[in-house]
Amino acid sequence: MTTSYQLYFSPGSCSRVSIAALELLGADYELCPVLLANDEQLQPAYQALNAKGKVPLLVNHEGLLTETLAIALYLHQTTPGSGLLPGSDAYDTAIAISWLAWCGSTLHPLIYRARMVSRIHPDLATHDVLRLRAVEDLSTQLGIAESTFSDGREWLCGGSWSLVDAYLLWCFQRARQCGCDIEGWPRLIAWEARAEAHPVWGRMLQREAQAMSEHAQGGSV
Amino acid sequence: MTTSYQLYFSPGSCSRVSIAALELLGADYELCPVLLANDEQLQPAYQALNAKGKVPLLVNHEGLLTETLAIALYLHQTTPGSGLLPGSDAYDTAIAISWLAWCGSTLHPLIYRARMVSRIHPDLATHDVLRLRAVEDLSTQLGIAESTFSDGREWLCGGSWSLVDAYLLWCFQRARQCGCDIEGWPRLIAWEARAEAHPVWGRMLQREAQAMSEHAQGGSV
Repeated sequence: MTTSYQLYFSPGSCSRVSIAALELLGADYELCPVLLANDEQLQPAYQALNAKGKVPLLVNHEGLLTETLAIALYLHQTTPGSGLLPGSDAYDTAIAISWLAWCGSTLHPLIYRARMVSRIHPDLATHDVLRLRAVEDLSTQLGIAESTFSDGREWLCGGSWSLVDAYLLWCFQRARQCGCDIEGWPRLIAWEARAEAHPVWGRMLQREAQAMSEHAQGGSV
Repeated sequence: MTTSYQLYFSPGSCSRVSIAALELLGADYELCPVLLANDEQLQPAYQALNAKGKVPLLVNHEGLLTETLAIALYLHQTTPGSGLLPGSDAYDTAIAISWLAWCGSTLHPLIYRARMVSRIHPDLATHDVLRLRAVEDLSTQLGIAESTFSDGREWLCGGSWSLVDAYLLWCFQRARQCGCDIEGWPRLIAWEARAEAHPVWGRMLQREAQAMSEHAQGGSV
């Protein structure tokens, strides 16, 4: 494989979906850590690449690309038959994109509201209620995913594991960490176990850990 | 044109982007009002179509489709050469999708936080600060768009008006209504005037107004 990519990521963040995409492709890529926990996304060198101050950022010979959804679509379209997104026609692809957009524009902002509550309001006294409201909305939304699995499907969209499962898995794990009561969702719990057991998810975790280990030793940036 | 669509919309909402898409295509379509102001998105008949309780929802012979971004991509891919999204290759399309994803996953949730503040926290005393924080973040993000126009481009992405401009225009107008101080953004103000003057935007407003007039007279849906 001659194509090579750099992916700017932060460990544990939603950049996991883009790492999973590159792993699924078997791509030749380098992981470049931008630690959100240390506000590294605000450093001038990174801001010059991505003024949004976010991850993921994908770089290759064509240029720079931000937003999980755009990266997923780009890699899907430039590697036909990769299985990154399910389906073979425009409608099936649009359904997959619709699920990714729901993760990105509905679930993810609710996770932000639940986790980064001090950025929503500075007063500590407001935080419990702000967090509770976000978690309630998140629960309502995840109930939609639970219902979707009621037809017995194994994966959220299409007949095999895809980036749609990867993004929902990331959101689902964050939702649990935020305090969402997931016990009422037996189908999502069963799906989570399947999705986590997929080899691509395991390889993604290994690559992320390896990059962080090299970073700690002052290896790669 | 034989293809026909139904688009469920709420006047003034982000469904304007999808109406603009159908207008740009010259498509044969019906507008079905779902008034968010009256909580009509929560009615069982609509929930049966779209459990998310949101607009837009596009329906055609292939099925149902939610999320502005998925609708934009689907209409773009099924009508080659329409100009809905700029560019002709996968990378250019991905750049356009990246801008749409930014509107949907960053600007739009901030607009929600600024406008629907009572759904974030029930206590009136918290609302001014919650709104201010959201408007500050929105201003920071819109500064990215202002910088993008510093290279003299007429449109946000590509050489002509596209759905990327339509979605940003909707966000920009909402940001102003939320109290964003737009005076510091001369390039965005000049772009807004161009984008609003595009015939497709005008036709979209007419169709929306016409559908609401028929709705008020008990005509459709």
